[in-house]
Amino acid sequence: MKSVVTFGEIMMRLSTPGFGRFVQAGSLNVNFGGGEANVAAAVAYLGIPARHVTRFPANEWGYAAAAAYRRYGVDTSGIVFGENERIGVYFLETGAMLRSSKVLYDRAGSAFATLDPSGFDWEALLADAQWFHFTGITPAISATAAQACLQAVQTANRLGITVSADVNSRKNLWQWGKTSAEVMPELVAGCDLIVCGKGDAEELFGITELKGEDKGFISICKQIQERFPRVKKILTTKRGSVSATHNTLMGRCWTGQELLQTTTYDMMPMIDRIGGGDAFLGGFIYGTLTYQDDQKALDFATAASALKHSVEGDFSLVSVPEVEAIMHGETTGKLSR
Amino acid sequence: MKSVVTFGEIMMRLSTPGFGRFVQAGSLNVNFGGGEANVAAAVAYLGIPARHVTRFPANEWGYAAAAAYRRYGVDTSGIVFGENERIGVYFLETGAMLRSSKVLYDRAGSAFATLDPSGFDWEALLADAQWFHFTGITPAISATAAQACLQAVQTANRLGITVSADVNSRKNLWQWGKTSAEVMPELVAGCDLIVCGKGDAEELFGITELKGEDKGFISICKQIQERFPRVKKILTTKRGSVSATHNTLMGRCWTGQELLQTTTYDMMPMIDRIGGGDAFLGGFIYGTLTYQDDQKALDFATAASALKHSVEGDFSLVSVPEVEAIMHGETTGKLSR
Amino acid sequence: MKSVVTFGEIMMRLSTPGFGRFVQAGSLNVNFGGGEANVAAAVAYLGIPARHVTRFPANEWGYAAAAAYRRYGVDTSGIVFGENERIGVYFLETGAMLRSSKVLYDRAGSAFATLDPSGFDWEALLADAQWFHFTGITPAISATAAQACLQAVQTANRLGITVSADVNSRKNLWQWGKTSAEVMPELVAGCDLIVCGKGDAEELFGITELKGEDKGFISICKQIQERFPRVKKILTTKRGSVSATHNTLMGRCWTGQELLQTTTYDMMPMIDRIGGGDAFLGGFIYGTLTYQDDQKALDFATAASALKHSVEGDFSLVSVPEVEAIMHGETTGKLSR
Amino acid sequence: MKSVVTFGEIMMRLSTPGFGRFVQAGSLNVNFGGGEANVAAAVAYLGIPARHVTRFPANEWGYAAAAAYRRYGVDTSGIVFGENERIGVYFLETGAMLRSSKVLYDRAGSAFATLDPSGFDWEALLADAQWFHFTGITPAISATAAQACLQAVQTANRLGITVSADVNSRKNLWQWGKTSAEVMPELVAGCDLIVCGKGDAEELFGITELKGEDKGFISICKQIQERFPRVKKILTTKRGSVSATHNTLMGRCWTGQELLQTTTYDMMPMIDRIGGGDAFLGGFIYGTLTYQDDQKALDFATAASALKHSVEGDFSLVSVPEVEAIMHGETTGKLSR
Amino acid sequence: MKSVVTFGEIMMRLSTPGFGRFVQAGSLNVNFGGGEANVAAAVAYLGIPARHVTRFPANEWGYAAAAAYRRYGVDTSGIVFGENERIGVYFLETGAMLRSSKVLYDRAGSAFATLDPSGFDWEALLADAQWFHFTGITPAISATAAQACLQAVQTANRLGITVSADVNSRKNLWQWGKTSAEVMPELVAGCDLIVCGKGDAEELFGITELKGEDKGFISICKQIQERFPRVKKILTTKRGSVSATHNTLMGRCWTGQELLQTTTYDMMPMIDRIGGGDAFLGGFIYGTLTYQDDQKALDFATAASALKHSVEGDFSLVSVPEVEAIMHGETTGKLSR
Amino acid sequence: MKSVVTFGEIMMRLSTPGFGRFVQAGSLNVNFGGGEANVAAAVAYLGIPARHVTRFPANEWGYAAAAAYRRYGVDTSGIVFGENERIGVYFLETGAMLRSSKVLYDRAGSAFATLDPSGFDWEALLADAQWFHFTGITPAISATAAQACLQAVQTANRLGITVSADVNSRKNLWQWGKTSAEVMPELVAGCDLIVCGKGDAEELFGITELKGEDKGFISICKQIQERFPRVKKILTTKRGSVSATHNTLMGRCWTGQELLQTTTYDMMPMIDRIGGGDAFLGGFIYGTLTYQDDQKALDFATAASALKHSVEGDFSLVSVPEVEAIMHGETTGKLSR
Repeated sequence: MKSVVTFGEIMMRLSTPGFGRFVQAGSLNVNFGGGEANVAAAVAYLGIPARHVTRFPANEWGYAAAAAYRRYGVDTSGIVFGENERIGVYFLETGAMLRSSKVLYDRAGSAFATLDPSGFDWEALLADAQWFHFTGITPAISATAAQACLQAVQTANRLGITVSADVNSRKNLWQWGKTSAEVMPELVAGCDLIVCGKGDAEELFGITELKGEDKGFISICKQIQERFPRVKKILTTKRGSVSATHNTLMGRCWTGQELLQTTTYDMMPMIDRIGGGDAFLGGFIYGTLTYQDDQKALDFATAASALKHSVEGDFSLVSVPEVEAIMHGETTGKLSR
Repeated sequence: MKSVVTFGEIMMRLSTPGFGRFVQAGSLNVNFGGGEANVAAAVAYLGIPARHVTRFPANEWGYAAAAAYRRYGVDTSGIVFGENERIGVYFLETGAMLRSSKVLYDRAGSAFATLDPSGFDWEALLADAQWFHFTGITPAISATAAQACLQAVQTANRLGITVSADVNSRKNLWQWGKTSAEVMPELVAGCDLIVCGKGDAEELFGITELKGEDKGFISICKQIQERFPRVKKILTTKRGSVSATHNTLMGRCWTGQELLQTTTYDMMPMIDRIGGGDAFLGGFIYGTLTYQDDQKALDFATAASALKHSVEGDFSLVSVPEVEAIMHGETTGKLSR
Repeated sequence: MKSVVTFGEIMMRLSTPGFGRFVQAGSLNVNFGGGEANVAAAVAYLGIPARHVTRFPANEWGYAAAAAYRRYGVDTSGIVFGENERIGVYFLETGAMLRSSKVLYDRAGSAFATLDPSGFDWEALLADAQWFHFTGITPAISATAAQACLQAVQTANRLGITVSADVNSRKNLWQWGKTSAEVMPELVAGCDLIVCGKGDAEELFGITELKGEDKGFISICKQIQERFPRVKKILTTKRGSVSATHNTLMGRCWTGQELLQTTTYDMMPMIDRIGGGDAFLGGFIYGTLTYQDDQKALDFATAASALKHSVEGDFSLVSVPEVEAIMHGETTGKLSR
Repeated sequence: MKSVVTFGEIMMRLSTPGFGRFVQAGSLNVNFGGGEANVAAAVAYLGIPARHVTRFPANEWGYAAAAAYRRYGVDTSGIVFGENERIGVYFLETGAMLRSSKVLYDRAGSAFATLDPSGFDWEALLADAQWFHFTGITPAISATAAQACLQAVQTANRLGITVSADVNSRKNLWQWGKTSAEVMPELVAGCDLIVCGKGDAEELFGITELKGEDKGFISICKQIQERFPRVKKILTTKRGSVSATHNTLMGRCWTGQELLQTTTYDMMPMIDRIGGGDAFLGGFIYGTLTYQDDQKALDFATAASALKHSVEGDFSLVSVPEVEAIMHGETTGKLSR
Repeated sequence: MKSVVTFGEIMMRLSTPGFGRFVQAGSLNVNFGGGEANVAAAVAYLGIPARHVTRFPANEWGYAAAAAYRRYGVDTSGIVFGENERIGVYFLETGAMLRSSKVLYDRAGSAFATLDPSGFDWEALLADAQWFHFTGITPAISATAAQACLQAVQTANRLGITVSADVNSRKNLWQWGKTSAEVMPELVAGCDLIVCGKGDAEELFGITELKGEDKGFISICKQIQERFPRVKKILTTKRGSVSATHNTLMGRCWTGQELLQTTTYDMMPMIDRIGGGDAFLGGFIYGTLTYQDDQKALDFATAASALKHSVEGDFSLVSVPEVEAIMHGETTGKLSR
Repeated sequence: MKSVVTFGEIMMRLSTPGFGRFVQAGSLNVNFGGGEANVAAAVAYLGIPARHVTRFPANEWGYAAAAAYRRYGVDTSGIVFGENERIGVYFLETGAMLRSSKVLYDRAGSAFATLDPSGFDWEALLADAQWFHFTGITPAISATAAQACLQAVQTANRLGITVSADVNSRKNLWQWGKTSAEVMPELVAGCDLIVCGKGDAEELFGITELKGEDKGFISICKQIQERFPRVKKILTTKRGSVSATHNTLMGRCWTGQELLQTTTYDMMPMIDRIGGGDAFLGGFIYGTLTYQDDQKALDFATAASALKHSVEGDFSLVSVPEVEAIMHGETTGKLSR
């Protein structure tokens, strides 16, 4: 089977054990994560070949980060290693009750941020690919990261590979001189599928709900498609927050014709809040390639995402039979012998 | 006081820490457990002498397993040690939310499965006993285990000792040539009390609800008693599953005359799902020997079982005052100083 | 800014990891705690200078206990170290579901219990103070502790320093010859603010609700003020217990004129039940000194206390911006990046 | 086989993990230990019935301490449980290099110290015994402990049971009014075998080396036997200290006729320094009962003690085949498959 | 570069933490290991493509075992997954001082033991290979494992691929009907290089030192080469055992002309005794392919093996620069910044 | 007593547990450390007031780092907190045998490196000081750090405060445009005491041994004093490296008149290699202020340093009585009860 290829930064994730606060920490759990790489890991765990492309420092942490993804089946042969740089780090403190989980980034000057676009031979990296995925975080990192991302999208378009993006607008990440609204439209223009919520649409494209026949999200989706004719599907999730460890989750997909949605999952206690969106898109890629049915793909995606919230770490370590059982309504967590 | 004697396999329990998945495990917690032995441990912790009979390999794990039960007061002097064999293992992954807890058995070829019935001198093992207990798992393990179990029941009957069984039908365990429906009736015929749900009754005895005056469980109990006149009481629990860590529990007892039941306990977060049924029966044995009142015994049993779900490991490490407080309605978990 | 000074015993807190029972413990987590010192720690973490006065044995545990408070900003220069004594210990087993958390005290003969009142130079210890706080536990420990406490209150009164007490009546602690009802009134007479619930009022002062215009708590507060004219504010919290890890919390403050109260917080899963009341008073001190508005002070206090229940250990490691966010309704625990 | 019975205090042992210092401790490992009980555990692990007699508080720690010994085969049925008391505690910090391991006692007011001698029915407790053992620590604890110990020795003498004592002189432990030199002689007079080094002999009996034919230890042993004619064998170990984790060990036995000694074991890295002497005497009891040969018994004892230094905790968890392999010179630690 | 391909069983390795004994274990560390797969991991970590071929159960442990090797760069695409079987387990207790480390095998009935030789397409599995390696353990497991191994060797010979074997004679492993002496010669006849000590040579081939010009190992090597003309090099290591954590190591290589040897490394404290031989051969493969100089290859191999003893787990996680530094005499472990 | 004031960067120290390699790490232990701050901690633990001056980011890690030093008695009131920056990190992998411990720095762009010299009011910071200490690492970090350091030295000189420096030449740290040889002389000119080895002297001052009467270190010291007349004492340590966990240590002090030296300590197993030099200087400061005897001060310093190698983390958690016992020859690590 052809590969799903993803591109983006991978960070070291250092999280306090249990519900400990940063200031109490005597040790930190080590994981690795990145929005795009997590999609590759999710897809690989579901049995579809996946390759992640990134840049690491040529030190033990770069090696360890690659190893972490390789462990769960991601092809890491396209990773570039640079000299004398650092790996980005994010610190995670897990919240409880009304205390929020907290992410503290320490990613400035990472090997990814300082990448040289000419270091990536996209023709070769995408040669055996059927799908290319990135997120709005990649172009936010640095001018060169944005440039490499654009080259990847353009190459994928030329090779006829499906392109998806989680537009994931985070204003405060954009520190290199341009805003997301200046950069993202050109990238989204090359996408076949995007994950994009209402807030993203307003921030990136200035698109808000129009008064008229179409309500809410449908109105927004139609405007996006008008502006970006290549975009055929628009996904989003609706997350309800009861407490730091109690959320609800529903998936939605605008197919160009209709707005599909799923059941709402109750998630309590969530074991890990991070990577839920990546599991959702990884699930949708699997579902699309497997079922050729948007509703089924969306159901699979949302079940996979809900299930992922029960797994510690960034990775969606959930298998096809497990997700399908959830899809089919086995959601009461009965002991399986 | 005379002893409660139990007979059955004890396995090594290797569980992932916290809510970790098997594939992530860097370490596994070590416990030991077995349905019958857990009843002995529950009873011993409640202050009644208890002895467990089983067969172990003569290696460190056999010794450690015996030590684990001895620690909490179970008399292990009746355990037989064989050469060159293994201890059965079960791996446990604790679920969360809609992800089920998962048990993976690795028990083939264990020292218990390969036991020689002549190795057990039941006259001696039951000499100071007042109660003998086994479960439907024991005869499922192997032909010789079934044979030893039958000899124990027959000896207990001859010595006038109360016999109980948790019939616990698990079809896929029966791999040695006979089915549970072929073997269990002869064993149940020697019982004074059984734990048996609707599904068990159908699978083992082909007994289903009759249309008529008696409804549901009562109808089934009456038929069981007709078939097995020695059986005087039939117990069952009704478990509701909201999620992997949120269950509800109610106990029921058919006394031959009436169907007693208890309040329903809300159990959230369950700390350990395993051994709840064993704590229930251990509690009922204690209650029966202490209160001479079926309702009180059932209330004690169900409170003990609910409380056990808050304790990690197979063992019901709950004391008489603690269970009685629950029985008397102290169920809000207020801090005790 | 002038200091908040507190006086009372600090114990070593040895708690089972996770939800383990005492009898299973292979290790115990080490923390330190004491009702008054916890108030100092809360206040210091919120940015107000705080000093705690106590007596420790001159051994490693005394040093470690002082270090634990110093770590979070408490001035420990007023601590007295004695010879050949022990530090008091309390063992904590964290409950789950309907199983209560359990505290087992082992504090007899501690360095604090055997203190010599002449060892504390209150003029010096309170020289730069604006607030003095103690609890009803301090005079319960021993005759000399009660005596030292009274000297502190009298010195504070003389120096014009605000005095507060959490009257915290625990009958079974009073083992040195007098009862709380004999000792506490003289101490409360020197207080400007007390934390005192209905049960405390009855036990310590024999005050119960009067039939008449004023209902419930208001009636009690008015009687307290009549008896103790210096007392200007009376605080209490209303805690609801659903299970060992699920409580609700509301704060109340009688201002002399009216009974203020807050929203009710739902706390699930509580990470640590201990120290909630200390965080409440620490928050009220901060709020009073900062806002000069009783309702705001009470809102801050209750939010701080709710938040504290999400932090392991006795200490209220919650910052001003975090508490203010809760005060302003951000209670759904959304991920903060 | 008849039992070995031991009598003495059991303490909770709280030790820092790894080589951590007390002041750094975030957790403490929980074990239980006591000089006499450790002998019982050693003997039981070697396959000889053993019973320990002591007094515990009737709380979870008393139960847990009994469970810890029962786990490894010690009969705990003779233990007395009292009300409202505490278990003694000793804190252990493991040294490294030139930094000593450190023991901090917190045992005042324990359930054992406050025992009532009439609570022990020695006739019954020694009914099936072949050997009674105590140490010089037991009478040091309190007057009543000394009294109970004397009653036990006298009963054993009357019943014709072998009596042994590790005289273990620790001056600073004797706080109840008498010195060891006042109390121990009467107890030693009832012993058949003692462990007693040169320092002990001087401190307890005022016996020092006489100038003459006999050198060193032999001279001392002869004087002891003259004074205490019942004493037939005198044991001691010679420990060399290179560093906190590197010791050497040799065993010696005066048989009344000659001074036997063993090879010197090099112990590096020692995993646990505590309980080495108890393992030595436990090994000697096993050896005496098994080999009827003093040299073999001494060789077994010393090998068992050396091996014990490789096991964490107070208990000598070493088996007969393991000790015999050491005895026979297999001391290079080759991997065993 | 072409691959190194290895074939053999991978087991789950469950080891006690620190120096804990099996009977004390509250948890076990999880690793995976197998003599041949460890060579693949060593080679891959040194930067040479490596593929391991084996058979696993199609359950989480099979997946996790493959993931463990994939993590460190081993190509796992040639692994076969079967149904309803188990993974072999070995338990490891780490010794200290004169207490040996202990391995307890529980590998009967594993997915590897029950393999079907027709499940392996050796033409395909070796298509891009330059080296094939197996050990004497593989044919010991079962008749079908021996058969598959022979097919692999014959295919490799036909394809002109270098073949190596660590003959590793373990008599008690051969339980399927034939002895190592009956099976191994045919396999060794297909080898270009073997690891074979004196004991192995006698046990497998009946070859012992001849009196004459050639001494010791040289005499044996010459006879082996006479019998097996394809064998061009014979390797062995000389291990000295001071204690369980203190060994010495020297490497030897008979080149057909001369006996090369290395410096002797002092290894104290050894962190992990397992996998030292696999690191040695992995290092020799790397050295041979890199240096084309037997002495250098041997020096690299021995340095890699010594270094491996400092790494926990079966895997030789040591890099080329690290090994080369040791080769060049940097053996004093100075802090590297 | 007047304070010892130190100035320099504090980093977060993230170390692998036990002897784990970076690539294996599932968690990292959290400590904080910095060469100058460690001296402050050592001095404070020995009972002398100490203040550390540095700059931290105004986030949880800055707060936690300050708390870590405050815990052990260091006055952190002079620390400056900046916005939007990071704390420097160093990763530590503990070596074993011939595998070196490894430090991986990630300190670029830290809050300290980007400090503004005008943020430090040295007149105030040194107002109550008797000693100021820095190391050659501080001016290596950045131009502004070098500038602030020079201002501190000049202020101290003006106020008549003793100034010491550990010149600690690390060429590869100097990345901001100047070399150590360009910057250090001006700083050393203001020092009364320096720690300076042969290599440092050559690298920083171009001073090498002169042929003539004076040998080795003495020759170098005399030249240093000629060049820097304020320097009255020159210290150094002589470390021998047997393996990663086995070193030897001797201290030397040139007093201007003679070269004093100490006994050589054997350190095995070293628990922590980091911070040994800081403990040495901290000890020397204590010794100088206490004994007014250079040999005693040097003996204390070296004993303190040796002892520190037994303590995990950067901090010298060793007390005066402990160090004095080592000084007096109690170096065999005998159990202390």
